[in-house]
Amino acid sequence: MLSPVWAGSRAAADLSEETWIDAMLEVEGALARAQAQLGVIPTRSAKVITEVARGLRIDAPMLAERSRGAANPVVVLVQELTAAVREVAPAAADHVHLGSTSQDILDSAAMLLVGHTLEVIGQDLSRVAAALAVLARRHRATPMAARTLAQHAVPTTFGLKAAGWLDSVLDAALRVRQTAASLPAQLGGAAGTLAAYEEYARDTAAGRRGHGLELAKHFAAELGLVEPSVPWHSLRTPLCTIGGTLSQVTGVLGKFALDVQTLSRTEIMEVVEPTAEGRGVSSAMPQKRNPVLATLVVSAARQVPLHSAVLAQCMLAEDERAPGAWHAEWQPLREALRLTAGAALTAAELAEGLEVLPARMRRNLELTEGAVVAERLNAVLASRLGKAESKRVLAGCAQRAANGEVTFAEALDEHPELRGHLPADVEQLLAPEGYLGAAEDLVTRVLTRQAREETS
Amino acid sequence: MLSPVWAGSRAAADLSEETWIDAMLEVEGALARAQAQLGVIPTRSAKVITEVARGLRIDAPMLAERSRGAANPVVVLVQELTAAVREVAPAAADHVHLGSTSQDILDSAAMLLVGHTLEVIGQDLSRVAAALAVLARRHRATPMAARTLAQHAVPTTFGLKAAGWLDSVLDAALRVRQTAASLPAQLGGAAGTLAAYEEYARDTAAGRRGHGLELAKHFAAELGLVEPSVPWHSLRTPLCTIGGTLSQVTGVLGKFALDVQTLSRTEIMEVVEPTAEGRGVSSAMPQKRNPVLATLVVSAARQVPLHSAVLAQCMLAEDERAPGAWHAEWQPLREALRLTAGAALTAAELAEGLEVLPARMRRNLELTEGAVVAERLNAVLASRLGKAESKRVLAGCAQRAANGEVTFAEALDEHPELRGHLPADVEQLLAPEGYLGAAEDLVTRVLTRQAREETS
Amino acid sequence: MLSPVWAGSRAAADLSEETWIDAMLEVEGALARAQAQLGVIPTRSAKVITEVARGLRIDAPMLAERSRGAANPVVVLVQELTAAVREVAPAAADHVHLGSTSQDILDSAAMLLVGHTLEVIGQDLSRVAAALAVLARRHRATPMAARTLAQHAVPTTFGLKAAGWLDSVLDAALRVRQTAASLPAQLGGAAGTLAAYEEYARDTAAGRRGHGLELAKHFAAELGLVEPSVPWHSLRTPLCTIGGTLSQVTGVLGKFALDVQTLSRTEIMEVVEPTAEGRGVSSAMPQKRNPVLATLVVSAARQVPLHSAVLAQCMLAEDERAPGAWHAEWQPLREALRLTAGAALTAAELAEGLEVLPARMRRNLELTEGAVVAERLNAVLASRLGKAESKRVLAGCAQRAANGEVTFAEALDEHPELRGHLPADVEQLLAPEGYLGAAEDLVTRVLTRQAREETS
Amino acid sequence: MLSPVWAGSRAAADLSEETWIDAMLEVEGALARAQAQLGVIPTRSAKVITEVARGLRIDAPMLAERSRGAANPVVVLVQELTAAVREVAPAAADHVHLGSTSQDILDSAAMLLVGHTLEVIGQDLSRVAAALAVLARRHRATPMAARTLAQHAVPTTFGLKAAGWLDSVLDAALRVRQTAASLPAQLGGAAGTLAAYEEYARDTAAGRRGHGLELAKHFAAELGLVEPSVPWHSLRTPLCTIGGTLSQVTGVLGKFALDVQTLSRTEIMEVVEPTAEGRGVSSAMPQKRNPVLATLVVSAARQVPLHSAVLAQCMLAEDERAPGAWHAEWQPLREALRLTAGAALTAAELAEGLEVLPARMRRNLELTEGAVVAERLNAVLASRLGKAESKRVLAGCAQRAANGEVTFAEALDEHPELRGHLPADVEQLLAPEGYLGAAEDLVTRVLTRQAREETS
Repeated sequence: MLSPVWAGSRAAADLSEETWIDAMLEVEGALARAQAQLGVIPTRSAKVITEVARGLRIDAPMLAERSRGAANPVVVLVQELTAAVREVAPAAADHVHLGSTSQDILDSAAMLLVGHTLEVIGQDLSRVAAALAVLARRHRATPMAARTLAQHAVPTTFGLKAAGWLDSVLDAALRVRQTAASLPAQLGGAAGTLAAYEEYARDTAAGRRGHGLELAKHFAAELGLVEPSVPWHSLRTPLCTIGGTLSQVTGVLGKFALDVQTLSRTEIMEVVEPTAEGRGVSSAMPQKRNPVLATLVVSAARQVPLHSAVLAQCMLAEDERAPGAWHAEWQPLREALRLTAGAALTAAELAEGLEVLPARMRRNLELTEGAVVAERLNAVLASRLGKAESKRVLAGCAQRAANGEVTFAEALDEHPELRGHLPADVEQLLAPEGYLGAAEDLVTRVLTRQAREETS
Repeated sequence: MLSPVWAGSRAAADLSEETWIDAMLEVEGALARAQAQLGVIPTRSAKVITEVARGLRIDAPMLAERSRGAANPVVVLVQELTAAVREVAPAAADHVHLGSTSQDILDSAAMLLVGHTLEVIGQDLSRVAAALAVLARRHRATPMAARTLAQHAVPTTFGLKAAGWLDSVLDAALRVRQTAASLPAQLGGAAGTLAAYEEYARDTAAGRRGHGLELAKHFAAELGLVEPSVPWHSLRTPLCTIGGTLSQVTGVLGKFALDVQTLSRTEIMEVVEPTAEGRGVSSAMPQKRNPVLATLVVSAARQVPLHSAVLAQCMLAEDERAPGAWHAEWQPLREALRLTAGAALTAAELAEGLEVLPARMRRNLELTEGAVVAERLNAVLASRLGKAESKRVLAGCAQRAANGEVTFAEALDEHPELRGHLPADVEQLLAPEGYLGAAEDLVTRVLTRQAREETS
Repeated sequence: MLSPVWAGSRAAADLSEETWIDAMLEVEGALARAQAQLGVIPTRSAKVITEVARGLRIDAPMLAERSRGAANPVVVLVQELTAAVREVAPAAADHVHLGSTSQDILDSAAMLLVGHTLEVIGQDLSRVAAALAVLARRHRATPMAARTLAQHAVPTTFGLKAAGWLDSVLDAALRVRQTAASLPAQLGGAAGTLAAYEEYARDTAAGRRGHGLELAKHFAAELGLVEPSVPWHSLRTPLCTIGGTLSQVTGVLGKFALDVQTLSRTEIMEVVEPTAEGRGVSSAMPQKRNPVLATLVVSAARQVPLHSAVLAQCMLAEDERAPGAWHAEWQPLREALRLTAGAALTAAELAEGLEVLPARMRRNLELTEGAVVAERLNAVLASRLGKAESKRVLAGCAQRAANGEVTFAEALDEHPELRGHLPADVEQLLAPEGYLGAAEDLVTRVLTRQAREETS
Repeated sequence: MLSPVWAGSRAAADLSEETWIDAMLEVEGALARAQAQLGVIPTRSAKVITEVARGLRIDAPMLAERSRGAANPVVVLVQELTAAVREVAPAAADHVHLGSTSQDILDSAAMLLVGHTLEVIGQDLSRVAAALAVLARRHRATPMAARTLAQHAVPTTFGLKAAGWLDSVLDAALRVRQTAASLPAQLGGAAGTLAAYEEYARDTAAGRRGHGLELAKHFAAELGLVEPSVPWHSLRTPLCTIGGTLSQVTGVLGKFALDVQTLSRTEIMEVVEPTAEGRGVSSAMPQKRNPVLATLVVSAARQVPLHSAVLAQCMLAEDERAPGAWHAEWQPLREALRLTAGAALTAAELAEGLEVLPARMRRNLELTEGAVVAERLNAVLASRLGKAESKRVLAGCAQRAANGEVTFAEALDEHPELRGHLPADVEQLLAPEGYLGAAEDLVTRVLTRQAREETS
């Protein structure tokens, strides 16, 4: 409720306490199966553990409270799982969590959930990209005012604006895929040497030199995660990478949403958010149509970089497991994932339904009665009068036009010394659609990229 | 579960979605009562609205999801409250939320909850302070090594260490009280002019000039909050202040906890966390006694400053209500409150049960066989040999002692040129308890402060 | 150059390496004087040390580079000072930095500079406040559109907008004064026990019990700083407080600047930044008049909260001096001070010269042809038709007006069922200046506060 | 001086105001050359501009102060450059900065400097990696205590510790290379359409459709930067990526340094920083040998993530150029680069000279008299007694040993029920070097990686 950007998002719901518990239980099952494959425990035990783990429901508030004893939830979770396995198959109970440590379970579970969430985010970014591509294509030639430092600068097209959003969304989507493909399993035992895993395997056929690494390989494969070079209990690059990816995603979506907000201002009104029953309404002002989707996305983009900063700072983790740095990661990670998933879903809805009002764009372009292409006049005149003189004259005209004394064209007209330097048809020179530079080429380039990456 | 520092904390539980809803409903009741006092609505309506609001249960997930429509939960909450009032007293339904706006309700509710949480935090800080005062008094003369840049520096006392923690906890407690006493009600109407409140009062006896301010005064009084000079919809100093206070609290508690972690290291082991059934245990290493309470506190202290940074940055809020900056505040505010409340409760438990091991402190002090008071020797010799020469000689002795060739005292003994410059009883000069400076005076000063503030 | 917000600011220049060195030398002098007052060193030595310290020029880059050896600049600075004193008065050389430690010098010097900077910031905030008071008074009755979520909401006045900025600037100024008055001297010796200070005093008349505290009192008095309860080498509440204050200052100034940017937009253009030769110009677009002062202030406000977050996090400082946390404070502190000083100076220039364009405010208010007071109509009609029905009708009218089919007034006119419920003169009801609520009362209240605090 | 981590670093010095000016001038030259290649300006002009730009010295403080007029330094820089060119070749003066905009120059210059700094950082990371590889190889079999939550956990090797540092340094080095290879040139003109560039080319042979993109390609090639899909004036993914990379670098170096600090503690003393004249000394405590290099690195690692967070947040940039978000990037970017460059250089010195004390590691391992391998005993006994019973017995033994009543081995001996379950030679079972798991395999794996990447 206090984070409406992800309220109702399926991906965010999939990061609940319950799902986190399920993921940890899934990891316990995967460990058992990996150990069974190598003959450390009976296949039957692995089967039972997997099944019991999948069916087990642990009360989350109870688990949370009891987690305080070990400062993490795994110790109690293992007790619950062991008890549940014992009821079904007493012999298998001693094969639960064999040789393992809390961090192996919690980190691997976190990576599973990160992977799942990134997949959903990736799908929503594809939706955003597809919708922005439609806008870029449709408005390839729709002129509007480009604004810099809050002022009209020169003309651009809405197509180029959309293409810019799109290009950065494609970058973000690429990074999401790369990050998702790099998520490592965690398997190190108490302090990263895998010693207990090897100890339990000592008397089995698997108990040869190298068992630890082999187990880690099987374990990662069971989970569909990458096998890292070394256990990363206190080498937290993966979390830093994930945080950076999420900041990038909300950054590009936030940029899009912020532009929508700006363009939705009452005085500008060049775009309008998609309408829906009850959306954007005010409780007391019936005339309002608030850009609420954009607002939700922006609110996420303001928060995620600081969650990512916590994750980056938690790389400052001493020893083989840090007392505090590890524990400070969990909630920021979850919050950042939820906010990003919510932002991606919301941005998809926004991009797919965005109303564009070319007539208002045109009207705003004409607000300054030609001054928006003063740069072009400057280019034309500079080569004749020199840059300094040209700028002096045009600044004077612009100033008079801004004061409302005359229009910009009229002001120009009052400078007889300009005659001969300007083409006969000054009007044409002042037409915004004639001064769009490479806008169309740039749109084409981004659309080509989008088409290529969409099908790859 | 992912924030075990506040799992099980009553104050943190009091920041649930449900409690937040209750607080908003409470604010709606307070508004109705204030309006009734001024004759804008019938007293009967205010009574009904208050009672229905107090009894109403709104499904939080439903509310969260529907909140997306307005980007805040108040619009839907008002619909639910209105419907519930209508069932009981149809005439009163139109008196719900009269002239109001979402932000008046949500901000005021937030201040209620902040006030409640700060009160609990204040109580827990008093517990921490009382426990630290006991430690400071008891160990006023217990010598231990002071450490700077991870190295033994000179002797200090555990009493002074505890007094330092205590002094900063007292500062933090003071700031919590000041902040709690400054929390403003929010009442401004749609855009801070109170226009609709005045409009609805126009035809009543209350409808004279100044009604808006009078209503704001009554409203604040109903809620036990401060009446601000002006509505603060987009003037967010209060949130910045709250964030700063929470950072300060977790900062001082985190400092205490970090010192506990350091002093608990296997090689140092000068303090041990209070034991409890199942606490600090490892799932596989039976010998461990992990400083889990300190770990939880540190994990909070790493996170809160970044939540506070979001709150400070959200002061960058445009117009009369910002599309995004306001919305980005809610979750960081709640998280920071929960983490701080959890940290205070956990720190109280830690301070009250901390075991101090003076014998280990003594043993560690003796580790360097006298070198820990080299500064004192330096002071004695500098006035005889000059600072430079004194330092040269002592550094040499220290180096040889560090290499394990001789003890520091033996090394001194080998410098015949020192004879005559050192007192006969060098041993006494090297005794750590003889070089404690003003430690005891400082402890007394802080204990005096604690006694004074405790009773005030 | 990369922080133009403080380029050219005197206060920021006063935070250069050279000034920092001067401040540390000043602290060495103050220590010597305090020790002379208590008879620990000859008055003559204190005099020489003070004078030499005031005249000494140390090459900053050399000092910086050599600082790496001790991870702080004081060790080398003391060597330089000692050598310079020796040249003048050999006997005094051994009285330099007597019993002291790097952190006493550097922390106290930092507090001196913070105090100086806060004083300048306070003066500039007074200028901002005075200028905003003029605007609030002058435009007490100037109607303009209040905007929420980027949309016109209801009318307000520019006077109220200015009064809101003013009120939060007054809060910030108050906090600056409180913080400046709370800055503590640092005197603890190697590890906070003041032991070496007492040791050097042992053979003097001053060498009685309690010398350490007495010295600390004299030292603080010499520097015009507050004497803290205990040395705060690793109890960093003062830094957290300073950071919070600076965040608050840039937050309120940033809010003002952000509003100026918004109101300066080409389509809105209700205010214009003060002009000056060469300011706000674009190299190629002669028509532009960029809100550069506001831009500079906003750029500062985006950065300072994160410098403050570093300071808050550095409270997590282990032992009696932390290896890293202390060292990470210095540059963020300086940056935050500079940015804030620059922002205050820039905001003063902005506030004093801001051009306000009431005619544009009026024109924008009329853009929606009455819909901006739909809330008022809603209030009038709700009491007759009920809230739901009233809202339904008005939303329909507003929608049709937004679509450009009719004006809002015409749309109303087409609802015959409204007749009899609306006063004859609907035009008057729709006049924005008639729906300003308590705006004027609020302005008066803030101006009264400003007058009171200005003279206090 | 306030950031000693980079004092004296060549790379940090290369980020001075002067170097920044040089880079901007270099970009102006590159633009002229690119335009000459396409026939827009005479080759002679490009030559003159390039030469004058390379020789020009602009007073940085003057430029900084005058930068306030446009809120960026380029406008004044172009004036200075134009004047200097005019003196040499009047005709070329009008070809300076032709069609360009401040952001094209400043952003491209920033990317040049980022590229240069990343290259140096990459070299220093290679030094760190090579030194860590030596340590990992040499101490492949040196047993030491692994510590988790500040407590001895199980044995590990110093080789594995070093291999873990190394592996994450290799990851960071890889990311530095990737980032350096991705840095984009910026060329978009006033608002990203390249319109003025095309306008100036209109009357030349180059002035055909597509000129803008072709110019951008040549420009990027001149600078050795990547040509982006679209101008990125307000699409700031590159800055977010750079920030993330720098956070990762200081994170992994900070982890290494933090471990060094911990292991340097007086009570632990398993490693010692490399000595050097005047390094690590205290002004008053001759015995100290402070881990100053590690301290400097840690101080950097605490700050960089927040600079990166500013950069990520500045992605929230409205319009075609954001009034504030762009301007807030420059100083954090420079600070983050300097801190990272300083950290890398310092870490190289630290890694190359680190003293390792295997005898102390051994002594610390024996501190708990066998309890550090309790996990192994647990594994052995669990398969005989069951997990629960095994843990109960061992926890009891560990507790008695911790209380100092008996040694762990003695405590075990007192449990007759264990006989028959433990091998005859319990001593051997308790030997730390027998319980190192896959430590050696892991070291080999990382060294193989290092060898492979070093030569690639």
